[in-house]
Amino acid sequence: MTSSSATPAQQKRLIDPLAFLPCSTVTEYKKGKVIYEYGQACDALYLILSGTVKLSRIGDHGGQLLIDLYRTEEFFGDLALLNRSQAAEEASAFSPSTLMIWRTAEVEEIILARPQLAIALLQTFGQRSLGFTHRIESLCLEPIESRLARALIRFSDHLGARQPDGSVVMEPLTHELLSQYVGTSREVVTCHMMSLRRRGFLKYSRKMIVMYPDALKCWLEEKLKREN
Amino acid sequence: MTSSSATPAQQKRLIDPLAFLPCSTVTEYKKGKVIYEYGQACDALYLILSGTVKLSRIGDHGGQLLIDLYRTEEFFGDLALLNRSQAAEEASAFSPSTLMIWRTAEVEEIILARPQLAIALLQTFGQRSLGFTHRIESLCLEPIESRLARALIRFSDHLGARQPDGSVVMEPLTHELLSQYVGTSREVVTCHMMSLRRRGFLKYSRKMIVMYPDALKCWLEEKLKREN
Repeated sequence: MTSSSATPAQQKRLIDPLAFLPCSTVTEYKKGKVIYEYGQACDALYLILSGTVKLSRIGDHGGQLLIDLYRTEEFFGDLALLNRSQAAEEASAFSPSTLMIWRTAEVEEIILARPQLAIALLQTFGQRSLGFTHRIESLCLEPIESRLARALIRFSDHLGARQPDGSVVMEPLTHELLSQYVGTSREVVTCHMMSLRRRGFLKYSRKMIVMYPDALKCWLEEKLKREN
Repeated sequence: MTSSSATPAQQKRLIDPLAFLPCSTVTEYKKGKVIYEYGQACDALYLILSGTVKLSRIGDHGGQLLIDLYRTEEFFGDLALLNRSQAAEEASAFSPSTLMIWRTAEVEEIILARPQLAIALLQTFGQRSLGFTHRIESLCLEPIESRLARALIRFSDHLGARQPDGSVVMEPLTHELLSQYVGTSREVVTCHMMSLRRRGFLKYSRKMIVMYPDALKCWLEEKLKREN
């Protein structure tokens, strides 16, 4: 399991939860299929064996928030460990997905027998929590153009396949979905995506996105220097 | 340990990490004293025995972000469990504080002997992670006035002392600090604080804030209804 935010220098040693979890039930989900709904009972920890899972939430005002897209070898449903009777989010298969599922009570039993699993899970979810604070930082301190560039870099690192020429190919992300991640309207995302495309940082169609994340990172760094 | 975001109906049973942690070193910090700095080695878990601790970060562009203010009986420094060589945040005493400190290696040893501690920590930090996603939701979907009202309600629930008349008295929070939490300028916070004060939701001086959180919650709910 890798993290997109930690470099080898920052991170000495992380334990993989999979080393301590016995195999469990496997379920397949077609693209778009809801895994659990907002407000539904939520008492399981999920591991993505293949595919991509979308976690989202509907705000008090009806607006949609994209919490994140999780990929193969990542966990979700960790909030079940809080013993809440209702899910605070909705999970659905963003692409056809195969999931391994452990009931919360089962996870707690395994932890009592193999406490290393708990350290591994603390690290896994701690990493995610750190990612949330990075996102809060971006939302609080950056203009939308930078927030969008940062989101694209993150998704390409996280979900894309790097090609020999340094470009990254990934499944298309609609402007609507990106707007639910960076906190703006679809129209504003479209405007900035056109500008990033004109600058040569990405190409996109309905079938895929081709990104040049290294060039986009350089541009973002230069932009930060100019703004300071 | 209580949470401001979970109601009894949502939350069946949470374990208190303190039930499994042996006593450790106690250190006192004067108001404003730095506990650990951004980029400094970070290898301990801290429990606040008394006082309030401020966690903050400096963004890439030099802007300050207030991650949160933590109170008595709350933990911080949990990112040390990620075995990162450098702290991703700065911790300082917001008010005179007494802290109990466990080295990370020690926490991991205790977990191996008493795995219930790990379940308790998973729940404690899971709760915090859920709070971060609520904040991302507010930053993505709400106008600044609502974000500020929500932040004030949160801080008054979390740090204030409720009085018999339903008002909450709390230490003053500068407009600068609030702006670092809701992601805007000090000037914009001042403008909205004046408006909230005119509406009778709060009174503030350099010595304290007196808030009427129930009235502010009602106003926020009405505002949401009007905007939908």
